[in-house]
Amino acid sequence: MSRLVKIKPGQKVDLKKVSTLPPDDADKDVSAKLLKEWQVEFDELEDLFAFAAVKGLLINVQGMDAAGKDGACRRIFGMGNILTGRAVCFKVPTATELAHDYLWRIHKEAPARGEIVIFNRSHYEDVLVVKVHELAPAKDIELRYRQINDFERMLTENGVIILKFFLHISKEEQEKRLLRREENPRASWKLAAADWREREHWDEYQDVYEEALSRCSTEWAPWHIVPSDKKWWRDHQIVEVLIEHMRELRPGMEQFLEDLGVKRRAELAEWKAANLKPRA
Amino acid sequence: MSRLVKIKPGQKVDLKKVSTLPPDDADKDVSAKLLKEWQVEFDELEDLFAFAAVKGLLINVQGMDAAGKDGACRRIFGMGNILTGRAVCFKVPTATELAHDYLWRIHKEAPARGEIVIFNRSHYEDVLVVKVHELAPAKDIELRYRQINDFERMLTENGVIILKFFLHISKEEQEKRLLRREENPRASWKLAAADWREREHWDEYQDVYEEALSRCSTEWAPWHIVPSDKKWWRDHQIVEVLIEHMRELRPGMEQFLEDLGVKRRAELAEWKAANLKPRA
Repeated sequence: MSRLVKIKPGQKVDLKKVSTLPPDDADKDVSAKLLKEWQVEFDELEDLFAFAAVKGLLINVQGMDAAGKDGACRRIFGMGNILTGRAVCFKVPTATELAHDYLWRIHKEAPARGEIVIFNRSHYEDVLVVKVHELAPAKDIELRYRQINDFERMLTENGVIILKFFLHISKEEQEKRLLRREENPRASWKLAAADWREREHWDEYQDVYEEALSRCSTEWAPWHIVPSDKKWWRDHQIVEVLIEHMRELRPGMEQFLEDLGVKRRAELAEWKAANLKPRA
Repeated sequence: MSRLVKIKPGQKVDLKKVSTLPPDDADKDVSAKLLKEWQVEFDELEDLFAFAAVKGLLINVQGMDAAGKDGACRRIFGMGNILTGRAVCFKVPTATELAHDYLWRIHKEAPARGEIVIFNRSHYEDVLVVKVHELAPAKDIELRYRQINDFERMLTENGVIILKFFLHISKEEQEKRLLRREENPRASWKLAAADWREREHWDEYQDVYEEALSRCSTEWAPWHIVPSDKKWWRDHQIVEVLIEHMRELRPGMEQFLEDLGVKRRAELAEWKAANLKPRA
């Protein structure tokens, strides 16, 4: 069983009280072994998911700069088949996107049945960075928590499973990672002065995250807090939540595909009987 | 003032009690004269709307076959500037559209600020034709009234004005129009046996329309019932509602553009002072 903190609807969140480190009894080698064991099963479940196409899966990854969003996305896709998955990175909105409601560009990218889509950043930026930097009127932002819950409920009622992960790192770990990027000539393009400037808003970001996690963790689309100072624990925990959900779907998907197979074989037999001449 | 029935939130609707004809004192020549008078004003308001780009406008047109949806759309666009408007006809959903939630293809076409978009049919088909022909499970359809209200509220809270028009015709008028299409070689491609077959479901359609009009007329996105047996009255009434709403926006839009003009003139003067050499 995944050991992530899954936030209950309405539950107050105090990020200072949630560790960014793996629990004491966690073991890097055990995590690596488990991930390896799950590889085949995950790949198979993903195939079933794509062929049965009964549900869509939306995986939402959020976190501070350098929290490991890109790495987590890459790890999730590493488990399965790129053909059934898609990652969407939501950057600074374009002029056309800004002219529409903020959910417009998000909804366009929602998964179809059978599709697995990872949102690397998402509509949550509209209650995070937008709130910290006052990029929209406060009264408009205030409405968004309800709008987001309504939107996500509508998606889940129409066949989309939504799993949201907040990658939780400490301020010290962020500094280490930013410095490492600075030193690495192959990664330094990833680093801008803006990243250091954003870091000055650390406490404000933690506050708006707490509010978003608390107000937008719902029965239909819960938030999970992922201790992310250690990448191996982060990946292990996210993949475990995913595989747990996929496993629950397995009986339904298998039944669906079996029924479809029976129907198709019958159709095929009928067509052959009517169209193929018996061999002499 | 427009004389349409505007349905109050939660108000029960009995279409049999609403006339499909113009009121007795309505006069075709007067309507024609008014529409002509409004032409210049409408065009100007539409220009302001597009340049100020403070709001988007969504005009939703629904009605039985041959109720005059295409004609109404054409008339609305005839009043203004095609450059600021766009009509979207929602046909039978494609396979890709069906694989997504039913609001996915709708939201994609939502107006940007400054845009006027007419929906010729819409997400309401998902509680109309889909309900009559049981194209989705009843329990899923039941959820859609709330989902639609939530979706429309989110749009209006994010700058979209929504006006919905139900083109109300009598069963006799529909028959006349279908027969006329049949006789007209230039329009007979518009008519399929399916139209006559759909007509057999007339009462069921009236029922599902009554339910949709009653449950999805909200403060933020009201339904108007347009007596549509006479095209001149239909067009006059729709355009009157539109122009009334645009007039309300005029002071705000003019102020916005005036402020923008002041700002731009100041920038221009500053740039000139810094960059243009004084003439000798």
